[in-house]
Amino acid sequence: MTEHLLTAARALDAADPLRHHLDAFVKAPGVSAYLDGNSLGRPLAVVPDLLDRFVREDWGTRLIRSWDEQWMALPERVGDRIAEVTLGAAAGQTIVADSTSVLLYKLMRAAVAARPGRSEIVIEAGNFPTDRFIAAGVAAETGATLVWVEPDSVRGVQPEDLDALLNERTALVVLSHVDYRSGALADMAAITARVHDAGALMLWDLCHSAGSVPMRLDACGVDLAVGCTYKYLNGGPGSPAFAYVRADLQGGIRQPIQGWFGAADIFAMGPEYAPTPGIRQLLSGTPAVTSMIAMQAMLDLIAEAGIDAVRAKSVSLTDFAVQVFDEQLAPLGVRLLSPRDSAARGGHVTIGHPDFRAITQRLWGEGVIPDFRFPNGIRLGLSPLSTSHEETLHGMLAVRDALG
Amino acid sequence: MTEHLLTAARALDAADPLRHHLDAFVKAPGVSAYLDGNSLGRPLAVVPDLLDRFVREDWGTRLIRSWDEQWMALPERVGDRIAEVTLGAAAGQTIVADSTSVLLYKLMRAAVAARPGRSEIVIEAGNFPTDRFIAAGVAAETGATLVWVEPDSVRGVQPEDLDALLNERTALVVLSHVDYRSGALADMAAITARVHDAGALMLWDLCHSAGSVPMRLDACGVDLAVGCTYKYLNGGPGSPAFAYVRADLQGGIRQPIQGWFGAADIFAMGPEYAPTPGIRQLLSGTPAVTSMIAMQAMLDLIAEAGIDAVRAKSVSLTDFAVQVFDEQLAPLGVRLLSPRDSAARGGHVTIGHPDFRAITQRLWGEGVIPDFRFPNGIRLGLSPLSTSHEETLHGMLAVRDALG
Repeated sequence: MTEHLLTAARALDAADPLRHHLDAFVKAPGVSAYLDGNSLGRPLAVVPDLLDRFVREDWGTRLIRSWDEQWMALPERVGDRIAEVTLGAAAGQTIVADSTSVLLYKLMRAAVAARPGRSEIVIEAGNFPTDRFIAAGVAAETGATLVWVEPDSVRGVQPEDLDALLNERTALVVLSHVDYRSGALADMAAITARVHDAGALMLWDLCHSAGSVPMRLDACGVDLAVGCTYKYLNGGPGSPAFAYVRADLQGGIRQPIQGWFGAADIFAMGPEYAPTPGIRQLLSGTPAVTSMIAMQAMLDLIAEAGIDAVRAKSVSLTDFAVQVFDEQLAPLGVRLLSPRDSAARGGHVTIGHPDFRAITQRLWGEGVIPDFRFPNGIRLGLSPLSTSHEETLHGMLAVRDALG
Repeated sequence: MTEHLLTAARALDAADPLRHHLDAFVKAPGVSAYLDGNSLGRPLAVVPDLLDRFVREDWGTRLIRSWDEQWMALPERVGDRIAEVTLGAAAGQTIVADSTSVLLYKLMRAAVAARPGRSEIVIEAGNFPTDRFIAAGVAAETGATLVWVEPDSVRGVQPEDLDALLNERTALVVLSHVDYRSGALADMAAITARVHDAGALMLWDLCHSAGSVPMRLDACGVDLAVGCTYKYLNGGPGSPAFAYVRADLQGGIRQPIQGWFGAADIFAMGPEYAPTPGIRQLLSGTPAVTSMIAMQAMLDLIAEAGIDAVRAKSVSLTDFAVQVFDEQLAPLGVRLLSPRDSAARGGHVTIGHPDFRAITQRLWGEGVIPDFRFPNGIRLGLSPLSTSHEETLHGMLAVRDALG
């Protein structure tokens, strides 16, 4: 009964202009469907060689000299590359550092301080936990109040959801561009404009869109953003995050963790901290160089493919997943927890069923690897460059069979 | 005229019970003396293979499953290993995370909050810049005042230097165990006891002692500590730092960057942040797994050698460096900026001369790599397991020749 789906999947794969990149990733023996590339992107096959060269030459032979020769510039250089490849942002506004959580803390603290006399942080009630947790901590220590947006959980935040919440007390709005559960894709331009109309700053969490969805941060006038590099940027487990600060805002903010790497003259080792003027002011400690190797190769691959082509493949994969859902899973009582319209959806599709917790554990043991999301969602993360339509079908049919 | 020194160096190397470990590190073609292992430790030769296996198997094949299987526990597991190998601390009190700067921020904020009614942070005026910068930021945002210890720059902070500064207003004392410039080794037991007598908390920066100097954190009753893993723990450029919080203090502190990895139930994704009770409460974002591979191999090597034997080798190297200094450099007007008594010295020796800035640049180009410290110091970082007496002599004679 699924032969026509297999035929369709193979036809889509045959017509996929990016299909040759599927072979660019490390093979995973025993894994027949990896549908969690939006939790942890697969390593490119070139990464072991890159790390070998890095250890033997850059670290092992150039030794401390590599800091002057290349590593000191790396946080900005890779940040600029992320900006160019997927953010739609000019150079000098993006930096790789810390983790998403630590960068959220720095930017939220900086933003609240940059809007004196305003005391409210608007944040989605269903935003990713670390965003909410960090915001709660920042609110507690700055005396700010959290104001919750509670949108429809499938559609995600719509511009008009903010109308009743934005006012002269709003300092900052924190939203995810692509919702980590539903995959709902927010209207960055319209929402940012409304936030600016209220005189507040806009901070976007790009964790689930960077490397998957083309953005236009500069054109949208976005103030602040953070994102993750171990999902669609395939940086490896715990690779550092990135932060974006609009160029003309950089002189008006101050982040609280004033470590030596953010100082104006790092090796002067002078008595007082003075922040360096540009985006490097967001740095605190020594940048995680080893963890920045893999992501550079993936950024090159995305650049080669083109982010618009990556997005087109992503839409094709998620549209196909919805088709398979309709035919094979909906009849079994599974619910679609993602937008049906691809224009309103990022790179993953989430489906729900009470048995999914137990099923996910079993599938993982069998080499079919989707993502489980509490309380009963399976998230199908379809990383465009490393996932085929046939693999998607195979994984979803395994879910169906596990339910049967 | 230096033949006797070469003979002495070779005799010391021949008698060195750890000499066979010199071959355990990646070879550096063109580098005849690497005397900067306390800025960036050399990679172990096994690291490329470890990274290869990590990328292909743990990351590339186990994929997201590795979080459950091993990575989630890694920050505590490696932290416990550091505690066992070099800190003299029981398990459950040490965690690998973030950078030294970010962990200093977390611990200083937590410490000031844990001592309500006290408003002074005592810190050395010559402490490493990031310690001073972070402390100044924490003071500014909490309303605390910095109180400066200004010890003799060679001897470093002595217990009695604190007598006039500690009182009922002191919340926290922040000192380096081994001074980053002079190498002066502080008396951890005596200083910690005095700080406790004043009712304050003690935070030690162990960046220049971890992996080089045996410590007894538990026995000394140390409250808080941070340290670096890319120096004598050879974790690679920007590898994450570690933090220690005394077990019975863990229930009484709260760090400000309350991200998901520090939450009691990380995947419940509940509405409110509740910190997990143990040392994991210091975590914020996703741990930097890739950057924790190399340090684990070095910790195994230090454990195999034994930290006391590592320290004995370190003392032998620095004693020999002082001998070479006396004979070859002092006559040229070079000054010794480190303690002469090895019991008062950590793992490096610093010497001073007005021409050292220019000389260091030249030596680096010739494959002799000491560390330059503003304004005119050359720091000879003699990482015990990767440095020989002959290499030390060669590097120091190159400095002499460059002055001549």
